[in-house]
Amino acid sequence: MLAETKERAAAYRATADGLVTLGPELTELMMRLDARICEWAREIQAAPMIFPPLMRVSDLDRLDYFRNFPHLGMVVTGIRSDHQAELTAKARHTHVAAGHVCDGHHLLPSAACYNIYLDLDGTVLDRPRYVTTAARCFRREEHYDGLRRLAGFTMREIVCIGPAASVQEHLKSFRRRIAEFAGAIDLPLSIKPATDPFFSQDSARLAMQSLFPVKEEFLYGDGLAIASVNFHRNFFGEKCGISLAEGGPAFSGCVAFGLERWLHALLDRYDGDMPRIIATLAL
Amino acid sequence: MLAETKERAAAYRATADGLVTLGPELTELMMRLDARICEWAREIQAAPMIFPPLMRVSDLDRLDYFRNFPHLGMVVTGIRSDHQAELTAKARHTHVAAGHVCDGHHLLPSAACYNIYLDLDGTVLDRPRYVTTAARCFRREEHYDGLRRLAGFTMREIVCIGPAASVQEHLKSFRRRIAEFAGAIDLPLSIKPATDPFFSQDSARLAMQSLFPVKEEFLYGDGLAIASVNFHRNFFGEKCGISLAEGGPAFSGCVAFGLERWLHALLDRYDGDMPRIIATLAL
Repeated sequence: MLAETKERAAAYRATADGLVTLGPELTELMMRLDARICEWAREIQAAPMIFPPLMRVSDLDRLDYFRNFPHLGMVVTGIRSDHQAELTAKARHTHVAAGHVCDGHHLLPSAACYNIYLDLDGTVLDRPRYVTTAARCFRREEHYDGLRRLAGFTMREIVCIGPAASVQEHLKSFRRRIAEFAGAIDLPLSIKPATDPFFSQDSARLAMQSLFPVKEEFLYGDGLAIASVNFHRNFFGEKCGISLAEGGPAFSGCVAFGLERWLHALLDRYDGDMPRIIATLAL
Repeated sequence: MLAETKERAAAYRATADGLVTLGPELTELMMRLDARICEWAREIQAAPMIFPPLMRVSDLDRLDYFRNFPHLGMVVTGIRSDHQAELTAKARHTHVAAGHVCDGHHLLPSAACYNIYLDLDGTVLDRPRYVTTAARCFRREEHYDGLRRLAGFTMREIVCIGPAASVQEHLKSFRRRIAEFAGAIDLPLSIKPATDPFFSQDSARLAMQSLFPVKEEFLYGDGLAIASVNFHRNFFGEKCGISLAEGGPAFSGCVAFGLERWLHALLDRYDGDMPRIIATLAL
């Protein structure tokens, strides 16, 4: 395992509760990797944006979040004022009891791109929009695993919202770009269609999904998805009231990169040889 | 008010619950500003690191967090499995009820540097350590205010841990550097001693604090702290078991920048003229 060799152990520290600390070399590597993806975003003139680190329950509700992913959700809430004095007085806290917290009006984001669609609420698009954003995303999992599966991880996305043809062209061009990049840095990836759980509970949508790929994942090694291209059809356009000037809800699609998983793949592929990884990425 | 002019309204969107969306220009500006601060960190060979986006209740407890700041804390927790089906079935969620969540074992960080000290737990230092990190930090406040007071904001810190003299020299040099930078970009700042709430409940410490400045803030306009230099004495060294090779707990001090507040100050000072701000920062 990665973390067992001495060099690699120094590079990062991962815990059983899904938290990772990146040392200077991996911090540098993650910034370079993100800078590379941002170059691609710049080439297509995607607007870089920074979105809030908390999402409203009511906004996630509009996106059917609680119908599909209640088990993954991480609720953010305060400590009830009538229990604060108790906490102050007591020693040795390992947790905040459920009975001591307020109702939660926010969740941590589970994907970077939801905020992009919510931000366009009520917009009529006369041309496709391209947006890029990175966010710390959070998912509550049964178990965590090094850089492969974290409670909080970093997702960079490049999104297109507009007519179906523009979105499909966006996804096609990034599918090619990722494959070329992986080839150039000699990182063996396989491409596999996947099912997007967003649509899994609706049989009409599921039937649609089988007609053409809605989600394709780029897998490293034994099946770790490090990137994906996702066609949402007009799901977010409908839910967020984003319309096309020619009529009807807008289509959308995103290209998503799980940055810590890329670190895992690069460390594994190059046996932890950081100078070689840095040199390879600088290609 | 900033957000009332048309250009500025387009630059960011802030909400009453303390969340802000930055448009492309401000996203770019924040990245440039952070890059500038990172140059200073590089000059002193501070190690760049990325820490987990969640902190353990037990770790914060070691730092007396619940004795001092229980009211500011944002607890992160999951939805109880026996209530998930209920959420799935019901429509129109505006919140997750307190009775539906699990005990919380994590909080969102309220400062970027806590993780640095916790990461050095058990270390014996034979020379001062310099570390830089940026983090989304969170504080539960009575009210929020544009870019000035957010539920989640971005803090860049440059920390020194070591002998008292090294720490004090670090803080002194950054005090000068910030003042010079503010002069160069023509941003009027005043410097004021402040009290650090970490030490406010202990009269011996409070007496110590009055002997020499422990915290100084750089204030813009009507008193908005956009940066601070903080001398922690050996508080974190003691709490986290960080020792000096010559004996005794290590001292520490941090220089902290609230990036969104710098955006506010720059927008205000330059009347929202983004090209001029960018040109000024490129000095």
